Amino acid sequence: MMKVLNRIKRTYQSDEIRQRFLDGKFGIEKENLRVDAGGNLSLIPHPDVLGDKNDHPYITTDFSESQVEMITPPMNSVHEALGMLETIHDIVSENIGDELLWPQSLPPNLPEEEKIPIASYGEKGRAKEIYRELLAEVYGRERQLISGIHFNFSFPDQMLGQLMRLLAPNQDFELFREEVYLRMVRNFMRYRWLLVWLMGESPVAHDGFKVKSLKTGEQYPIRCRNGMSIRTSPGGYRNREALYPDYSSVKAWKQSVQFFIDEGKLSDEKELYMPIRLKFEADSTRISHLEVRIIDLDPFEKIGVREENLHFVHLFLLFCLFVDEADTFRAEQQKLVNSNQDIVSCHGLCETVSLITFEGDAVQPRVWAGSLLEEMEQIFSSFGFLEHPRYHKAMKLVRQLVEDTEMHPAQRLLREIDEQGFIEFHMRKAKDYKALSLAKGFCFYGFEDMELSTQMLLKEAVRRGIDFEILDRKENFVRLTKDGRNEYVMQATRTSLDNYSSVLMMENKLVTKKVLKEYEIRVPGGGHYTKAEEALLDFLLFENRPIVVKPKSTNFGIGITILKENNDYSVFKRAVEIAFEQDDSILIEGFEEGREFRFFVINDDVVGILHRVPANVKGDGVCTITELVQQKNQDPLRGKGYRTPLEKIALGEAEEMFLKSQNLDFNSIPGKDEVVYLRENSNISTGGDSIDYTDEIHPSYKKIAVRAAQALDVKITGLDMMIPDIKIPAAEDNYAIIEMNFNPAIHIHCFPYLGKNRKLNQKILDALGF
Amino acid sequence: MMKVLNRIKRTYQSDEIRQRFLDGKFGIEKENLRVDAGGNLSLIPHPDVLGDKNDHPYITTDFSESQVEMITPPMNSVHEALGMLETIHDIVSENIGDELLWPQSLPPNLPEEEKIPIASYGEKGRAKEIYRELLAEVYGRERQLISGIHFNFSFPDQMLGQLMRLLAPNQDFELFREEVYLRMVRNFMRYRWLLVWLMGESPVAHDGFKVKSLKTGEQYPIRCRNGMSIRTSPGGYRNREALYPDYSSVKAWKQSVQFFIDEGKLSDEKELYMPIRLKFEADSTRISHLEVRIIDLDPFEKIGVREENLHFVHLFLLFCLFVDEADTFRAEQQKLVNSNQDIVSCHGLCETVSLITFEGDAVQPRVWAGSLLEEMEQIFSSFGFLEHPRYHKAMKLVRQLVEDTEMHPAQRLLREIDEQGFIEFHMRKAKDYKALSLAKGFCFYGFEDMELSTQMLLKEAVRRGIDFEILDRKENFVRLTKDGRNEYVMQATRTSLDNYSSVLMMENKLVTKKVLKEYEIRVPGGGHYTKAEEALLDFLLFENRPIVVKPKSTNFGIGITILKENNDYSVFKRAVEIAFEQDDSILIEGFEEGREFRFFVINDDVVGILHRVPANVKGDGVCTITELVQQKNQDPLRGKGYRTPLEKIALGEAEEMFLKSQNLDFNSIPGKDEVVYLRENSNISTGGDSIDYTDEIHPSYKKIAVRAAQALDVKITGLDMMIPDIKIPAAEDNYAIIEMNFNPAIHIHCFPYLGKNRKLNQKILDALGF
Repeated sequence: MMKVLNRIKRTYQSDEIRQRFLDGKFGIEKENLRVDAGGNLSLIPHPDVLGDKNDHPYITTDFSESQVEMITPPMNSVHEALGMLETIHDIVSENIGDELLWPQSLPPNLPEEEKIPIASYGEKGRAKEIYRELLAEVYGRERQLISGIHFNFSFPDQMLGQLMRLLAPNQDFELFREEVYLRMVRNFMRYRWLLVWLMGESPVAHDGFKVKSLKTGEQYPIRCRNGMSIRTSPGGYRNREALYPDYSSVKAWKQSVQFFIDEGKLSDEKELYMPIRLKFEADSTRISHLEVRIIDLDPFEKIGVREENLHFVHLFLLFCLFVDEADTFRAEQQKLVNSNQDIVSCHGLCETVSLITFEGDAVQPRVWAGSLLEEMEQIFSSFGFLEHPRYHKAMKLVRQLVEDTEMHPAQRLLREIDEQGFIEFHMRKAKDYKALSLAKGFCFYGFEDMELSTQMLLKEAVRRGIDFEILDRKENFVRLTKDGRNEYVMQATRTSLDNYSSVLMMENKLVTKKVLKEYEIRVPGGGHYTKAEEALLDFLLFENRPIVVKPKSTNFGIGITILKENNDYSVFKRAVEIAFEQDDSILIEGFEEGREFRFFVINDDVVGILHRVPANVKGDGVCTITELVQQKNQDPLRGKGYRTPLEKIALGEAEEMFLKSQNLDFNSIPGKDEVVYLRENSNISTGGDSIDYTDEIHPSYKKIAVRAAQALDVKITGLDMMIPDIKIPAAEDNYAIIEMNFNPAIHIHCFPYLGKNRKLNQKILDALGF
Repeated sequence: MMKVLNRIKRTYQSDEIRQRFLDGKFGIEKENLRVDAGGNLSLIPHPDVLGDKNDHPYITTDFSESQVEMITPPMNSVHEALGMLETIHDIVSENIGDELLWPQSLPPNLPEEEKIPIASYGEKGRAKEIYRELLAEVYGRERQLISGIHFNFSFPDQMLGQLMRLLAPNQDFELFREEVYLRMVRNFMRYRWLLVWLMGESPVAHDGFKVKSLKTGEQYPIRCRNGMSIRTSPGGYRNREALYPDYSSVKAWKQSVQFFIDEGKLSDEKELYMPIRLKFEADSTRISHLEVRIIDLDPFEKIGVREENLHFVHLFLLFCLFVDEADTFRAEQQKLVNSNQDIVSCHGLCETVSLITFEGDAVQPRVWAGSLLEEMEQIFSSFGFLEHPRYHKAMKLVRQLVEDTEMHPAQRLLREIDEQGFIEFHMRKAKDYKALSLAKGFCFYGFEDMELSTQMLLKEAVRRGIDFEILDRKENFVRLTKDGRNEYVMQATRTSLDNYSSVLMMENKLVTKKVLKEYEIRVPGGGHYTKAEEALLDFLLFENRPIVVKPKSTNFGIGITILKENNDYSVFKRAVEIAFEQDDSILIEGFEEGREFRFFVINDDVVGILHRVPANVKGDGVCTITELVQQKNQDPLRGKGYRTPLEKIALGEAEEMFLKSQNLDFNSIPGKDEVVYLRENSNISTGGDSIDYTDEIHPSYKKIAVRAAQALDVKITGLDMMIPDIKIPAAEDNYAIIEMNFNPAIHIHCFPYLGKNRKLNQKILDALGF
């Protein structure tokens, strides 16, 4: 081993390059039972709103109709896979009505066995139902309800190629690759007791929980007071008979498994319940990835698994690749390592229990764990892995557990259950997690760096079972695929629905205005200039009229000056100069009275209307402005740096100055219901509020917005309209369209400060035909 | 008058603002007879390729089938109107086969009167034919063949509004406006002799030219040796009887004209042949513009009119607005000014002839002209008009004519005709003009500041009779309209044919590559990086392989480095840095062997393939490189500053260095047929050659290009493909697509250095359904 590590270290001298051996594809599968408010297994069918579970790539059912299975596709990092899992989890939580997701591997209150609903798949999924009936027969429905986490991992072939160049340059790549995975599986089997010891979280079951004996077929209650994980114990998920496949090659393994099937010990390869599974490419004997199946649900985590734990599992897999093998892993040797797992599962909390090393020596788990961690650290430090913050943290946590077994999650869990009761503790957690899910409904975890609009679109895509791929993360450019059809979407609203010239027209304020005018839609009058001199000549045209001077094609208010009384040539001149600093072409327009509203139009339909107001607080006659701001900033919709639909209100210089102009300061106490503004501008980015007006505005304005979209032949647009009085019907001269945006945000309409979620993510996917 | 001028000067202190009174809308109409190579009037019908003359907005026929009428829409400047006219003129020249456009107002060799073909308009234009038959009856076909220039002018209402604010702030705007135009007409009539005196260019007719007497109906020959303009003389285009409408108001004018019609002196208002005409908005008595009809074709100019002359006519119209009126312009006074026109038309070249002033005094034209010019200069200088280079030049030219009557165009023309003969001189000119039109076929005059691709597209639109409008000149954004349908086109190739997401995909090299790859189309392998560190880590992946390092989304080769032997980390690092200077996201790709070809795809069809080679000369064994370059640069396709399809080869430092690397200098004499390259890069902008390969390349590559366009669902694209050997069919690994461009130039395929004009402008309009 050391030779290998030294060679790698010599070749790749930079930490960063060696850290690339952390690259991989990571996927997670998770089951949760649905329960009612009383902690009873749900007897309601899987909700239709979560799509067709026959072909939903992310959300389906496992054994039972009430056992939701959540599946992430292979992702580029553990962090991303967890984010994806959390998003799927949130989607499920949001769409199961008042039900909750049971956060424990072992089941809640169950009805009689025959009332536990087997998952139903309709006509086209009949085969799945038959298989489940077989499982119910052999293992009992209760046992099949035991839920957990599966963790999928594969190396990028490119990386394995690099590894081979270093270790066995003349070997056949496919042989090398197979051997890498098999070696990892063998070592995983050898050392897997460690994962149970560190992460086992099903130490006790609910009082009434019984499983069917795999030998006698009788129901018996599960009790295992010193155990860490009933789920991974012999009382948990096991084959009828212990099986010892041949792990020397894929061919040998396949042969041995076929032998078990021929002997009637298994119905199928997939019935082989192992702590780690070899997975193959479709119709092939080429290994696609490894599936770690030994991880219990973590009731202390909303999504059932702690990020550090999965990072450690990843490290553990890499350890299994590099650590030397103790033996050839014959049946006898497999029996030994299996029994180590059982000892930890059933008695791991007992301080005096011992495991048996490969040399046949008895050793306390804590002692062996300590020496394994040392070995790991030696390997990982030679790769620089522990310099990586996430992996560093994962390793640190594990080290703490070795030092203080009281901190073991199973131990903590037992204490909580003793105090609160099995059902009560888990139900309290389940409720907290649901509240968390609902409060952060705007977020697609793992993709928080992307725009909120894109996050929301993707989340809705996941609900609908649409495959997605991030084509260009920074550009928020994604591909959605369903039933063989691709849609390419940038920034949630730039789609194939619009034709290129319509977009170019929107991008060009001059053209937008000209065309709208021709359609008898009111736009601010004014001129377009490519030279400052020309603009200045027109001072006469605009003299004594309120005007806006702005660059032709910025989308964000930069370089815009409003002159309410245009009677000073030098001020006018400066405004022109400022606009020309932003673009080489500017507009001077009449300033329109009224408030500005954003109309969101999709396919000739106004689907949302929003108005923004500057950062403000409403007094209660008691609290200071500072306190009111702090209260308002508690809203989970408010955050910092555009990661939330609203931004926290700052208490900075700008706010201080603006308050001062009103003879106020941060310590002033506004009267009851008195609204105090802290800013002049209404941007969301400076703490402004977004208020939904979709149902408030006179419908005549919506007709104008739709006509404007039609004038430019636009399918998706965010159109800014000035309206002095939203209750008075639109007439020839009481509104003006300021701008049409080709990439309007959707999140502001989904999570406004006041008003309904207008579900524009759903409407865009509808419009795209998904 | 002086009061007015002083008020204007006081109010608008800057020259530039006062120059805005030069703003207006300017249109030109022109007739030319088609002639055969012998100078005989063409008896061939108007070519179909010029569209349906019943509703072609730019090209139709006037009285005769052989009398092409060219019409510009109202344009924003005289210069632009002239450019538009030149473009229309070129289009006609290019599409009349071997025929020529006769450059003289008076006709060429004519057949017997009844053989002169009256314009035919088919069933739907029957009324037009009947009217022409009436005209033939009354005026004779020969007289109707007399051709000329009409110049249309109107003020922007906004400008008239400003003028009113200064002059008569309390007047009704419409009344003020009417009075402005009527005053201009009256003064125009008074002083119009000056325009004939300055611009008359039909001093003699062809020997055989006879016109029908308007009194007796007999044919008589036209001779007028001392005249300047037979066309504007009593022998030219005149009503049967002198008519004196009432110019005091539009209402009075309309009444008086109706009276002439009722009396049978006119068939119609439009039969009133006046040197200047009031034109009205459709179905209205509101004046739309003034039409100056007094200008002869100028045989010394390709397009029949000298730019300076039209600028002077414009100034003259403004003079007519500001100069005080001498009288009330009753019939008697009209008679007087008409006779002044006749004197100049018939005797203007006679030094001793006199005109009669409004006061009844005799005055030599030259003397009166001199004092009028002085008066004009006084007015114009108070507006700053003469600071404007074009108007300055126009005025200067006129002043020269006053000083030296030998320079009068009529005088010059007589000299040429005396020397060469009437038919011969004009035919020589006609041939020269045709050659000029053909040599600069790529150009849309008046719009030379726009991209060549757009110029060519617009030119083709004009041929097809499509209305166009420049929506944003700098952006090359135009609207094409026909039969009520609008198409918005930017840069000739950004159209509604493509959907937005396809364009976004092309814009993003990463996405383009990914999608093409999925369609099993070969693209250079490699990676995409958003951080320099990540890219540097991959040095190992690319070590010892030829690679290209480039920014993700530039369209123009900036920031691209080719590393043919990537074996030096520091060089690799520098290349990465250079790419990141241009974009915050870069690509590193395998370098592809072969030559690069641009495939232009429209609607699943490869319509052009182009290859570019660096600036080069081919030796003749005699000339030096300098001489060869000078010869090659003679090509009218070569120019400077992207105004031509090719650029002139420079003899600069870069070329000198590159020759030096081949042990050559500018004085070296290459052997016969030896090709010497002066540059390494093949950019057209540095004198490179574009070579059409559309028919040369194995068709299998075209199929790949079409498949690539389909993969991105793109209708118009310029796709860059590397091909090592264009004769060998495409296989899995002998090509690579480098890039797909969403705004490919079309002009390079229309006017290549070698090869056919692939008429992409036509193909794009076809694709757009025009």
